This record gives sequence, structure tokens and C-alpha cells, in this order.
Amino acid sequence: MNDQIELYGANTGNSLRAAIALEESGIAYTARKLDLYAQEHRGPAFLALNPAGKVPTLIDHGTTPVLVINQSNAIIQYADSIAPGKLAPAQPGPDRTRVIDRYFFFVTDVIAPSHAAFFLHQAGQTKAAAIIDLRVIEQLTYSESFLTDDFMAGAQFSMADISAFTIATAFRDRLDWKQLPQLSRWFDTVEARPAVQRGLNVFNHS
Amino acid sequence: MNDQIELYGANTGNSLRAAIALEESGIAYTARKLDLYAQEHRGPAFLALNPAGKVPTLIDHGTTPVLVINQSNAIIQYADSIAPGKLAPAQPGPDRTRVIDRYFFFVTDVIAPSHAAFFLHQAGQTKAAAIIDLRVIEQLTYSESFLTDDFMAGAQFSMADISAFTIATAFRDRLDWKQLPQLSRWFDTVEARPAVQRGLNVFNHS
Ligand SMILES: N[C@@H](CCC(=O)N[C@@H](CS)C(=O)NCC(=O)O)C(=O)O
Ligand SMILES: N[C@@H](CCC(=O)N[C@@H](CS)C(=O)NCC(=O)O)C(=O)O
Repeated sequence: MNDQIELYGANTGNSLRAAIALEESGIAYTARKLDLYAQEHRGPAFLALNPAGKVPTLIDHGTTPVLVINQSNAIIQYADSIAPGKLAPAQPGPDRTRVIDRYFFFVTDVIAPSHAAFFLHQAGQTKAAAIIDLRVIEQLTYSESFLTDDFMAGAQFSMADISAFTIATAFRDRLDWKQLPQLSRWFDTVEARPAVQRGLNVFNHS
Repeated sequence: MNDQIELYGANTGNSLRAAIALEESGIAYTARKLDLYAQEHRGPAFLALNPAGKVPTLIDHGTTPVLVINQSNAIIQYADSIAPGKLAPAQPGPDRTRVIDRYFFFVTDVIAPSHAAFFLHQAGQTKAAAIIDLRVIEQLTYSESFLTDDFMAGAQFSMADISAFTIATAFRDRLDWKQLPQLSRWFDTVEARPAVQRGLNVFNHS
């Protein structure tokens, strides 16, 4: 526990990615669970931190003024900047660039459409949501082709694995795992990481 | 002109963001225009560089092996890494983190849904596409509230402005500009930047 850094979140993909990034980086923080059903993310206390009323939000009380980060991916890149080498090669260069490239594939071409599908479901646009979900599955399946190494962007675990893992988990029951030997092996390896497990469970207890 | 770095692209938002980032960073490169109507992005030469058959793709022949970047946002972050300070504060810290936070707001909460809407349009899901487009307009309008400084993430131009500008351009005719005085002022300022203009036009001539 460390009260200097607080992570507000819930059991949503964006919150869990941020939590896993902090855990994998070895950054001490306190998880603060918001009850989305009770609309805690729309209450005045939280809106003062994140006017958009969304999770996750990270607060670092160690800076003046206090640092507030509202985007899950900015939290991941913040973790990378304060614990260099844990989520991507520390030095600029081709290895680091490959990590960033793969990471954005998952952020923009896989996770982002899945959010659009979720939004369409809520808006009653079931057919459109299903069309986009199929696209998400296609893109996840495509990642089999570049999984030539242990992890999504080379021999080391990286932020690309964090972004890939949570969305693969969400679509776990809809992937044709028998046709995806590399992705299966990768999924088991990532799932077994203690820091990943801690991140996945942090909003169950707090 | 400099043949060490090549940017393959077309007049699409993702390609233009990458081009503007290179221009604003002062990185010399050669633009290679692909004719998407003629399916040049699906030909064997281009698929060898980007198996997903999408633009943009950046090639840096100055590294061994040659560096290939397939994600527009990874190109932006590559430009930031080789020309520190042009697209975000060079030093890690709160100012840099604010830039990254705002940048991801546009990437994941504004641009990404607009891509989903485009995809739904093509799939004949007109109503669902319109629902998402409204959401994009809402989010762009929300940015009025944090435009308290000259640029999207402070007093300096940054990658947050690049991501915001191209999507604001795409929705230019659908924003209620009279209600958006800060966004109007910001838009004119960014549009007037010579590097932005060069980036916007690079795939017209090449
Ligand atoms: N781009 C943001 C998206 C955050 C977001 O949309 N969070 C959702 C949960 S995954 C949320 O808080 N929704 C509550 C609401 O909008 O009412 C991020 O990556 O952090
Ligand atoms: N996430 C990628 C997306 C690239 C992308 O979807 N490009 C589109 C144009 S904006 C494309 O090339 N589409 C051609 C196709 O899919 O046939 C990026 O940001 O670069």
C-alpha cells in the first residue's frame, strides 16, 4: 500500500489494463474501487477528478500540483516513464518502436472497436454491434500471424501484451482456440504472471 | 527530400496525422502516395511492408534491419522520440503526462469511434453509424471545456493537437462553432501552422 498514488477504477477493461501496468512496473499504489452501478463515477467527488466521469483515473499526490491522469493508456505510458524497461525497452530504437507499434494495434484496431460495439449494444443496435464484434475477433485472430516470439512484440513482456490480454480475455469464449496455437500458448503464459493476476483482482477487494 | 525515411499513405486521417507529426518534428522524409481506389495497398509490394494492407506505414532505412512502423500513432511516438520536445515536453513529468493524457482522449474517445462509424457506414449500418457520429461530436464539443490554454494540452503545440485537429477537420461542417469559441480559436491557430499545411498536402503531390 502506498497512498501517494491512487488508482480509481472498477472491473472494466480500461481499469484492469491500468492496474496490470502498475503491477508489472512494480509501482506501489492504492486501488480505489468505484461502484459504477451506484453511479459513484458520476458523484461530485469523482467528477472533480475526472469531469468526464469515467474510469480509470490515477492520482499522484507526489507532484505539485497533484497529477491527475484520466486515460488508461496515459496511465500505462506514465508507468513506463517512471519504471523504464518494465513495459517496453527503455531506450528509443527499433525494439521499443516495435512494442509501441503492436501496442497501438491492440489499442486502436481491437480494443477501440470493442468499445464501440459495447456502446451500440447499450443503444439497442444489436446487429451493428455484432458486425463490429466479428471485426474484433478477426483482428485478434490476425495477431496469431505476428506472434512469432514469446510475447506480442518480442522476447520480453510489454505493454503490447497488456493491451492484447484483456481484450483476448473478454473474447475468450468466442475465439477458435484450436486454430490459434500461438495465441493459446501466449494467453496461458500471460495469464500465469503474478503481476497480471494481482492487477486483474485489485478491484475485487478494494 | 530524404530517402532514408519513407511514409506510405493516402489522404486519410491516419496518414495525415503521421505526416503532420513528421513535419512538425522537422524530420526529413519522402511521402509515397498509395492509390487506395486502385487497391495499391493490397498489392504484394505493399503487403510485404504491412501485411494488414493499411496506411500509413513508415520505413526507416537507416536501421538494420530496416524499421517498419504500421500504426499511425506509433509513427507519431517515433517522431517524438527522434525529435524530443517538438510533439511533447521532452522530460518525463506532469507536463508531458498531460499531453499524453489529452492525446489519448482524442485517439481513443474521438478518432476511434469515428473509424467504427465509417466501418458501419460501409457495412450499410447507417443508423448505428449516425449514433456513433453523434457521440464523436459530443466528445469533440467536450474538448471546449479543457481548452483553457492556447493548445489542447497547454501553452505549447503537441501531439494532442495533431490528433484533435484532423478529427475536428473531418467534422468541421457538423460542429456548432458559434457555441465553441475556444475550439474555433484553436482550430484557426492550428490550421495556420505551416507544418500542418505541409502535412495535409503531402499526399496530393507525391
Ligand atoms: N479512453 C478512456 C475510456 C474510459 C471509459 O470509457 N471508461 C468506461 C468504462 S470501460 C466508463 O467509465 N464508463 C462509465 C460511463 O461512461 O458512464 C480510457 O481508456 O481510459
Ligand atoms: N490503427 C491503424 C489503422 C489504419 C487504417 O485503418 N487505415 C485505413 C485508412 S484510415 C486503411 O488503410 N484502410 C484500407 C483498408 O482497410 O482496406 C493506424 O492508426 O494506422
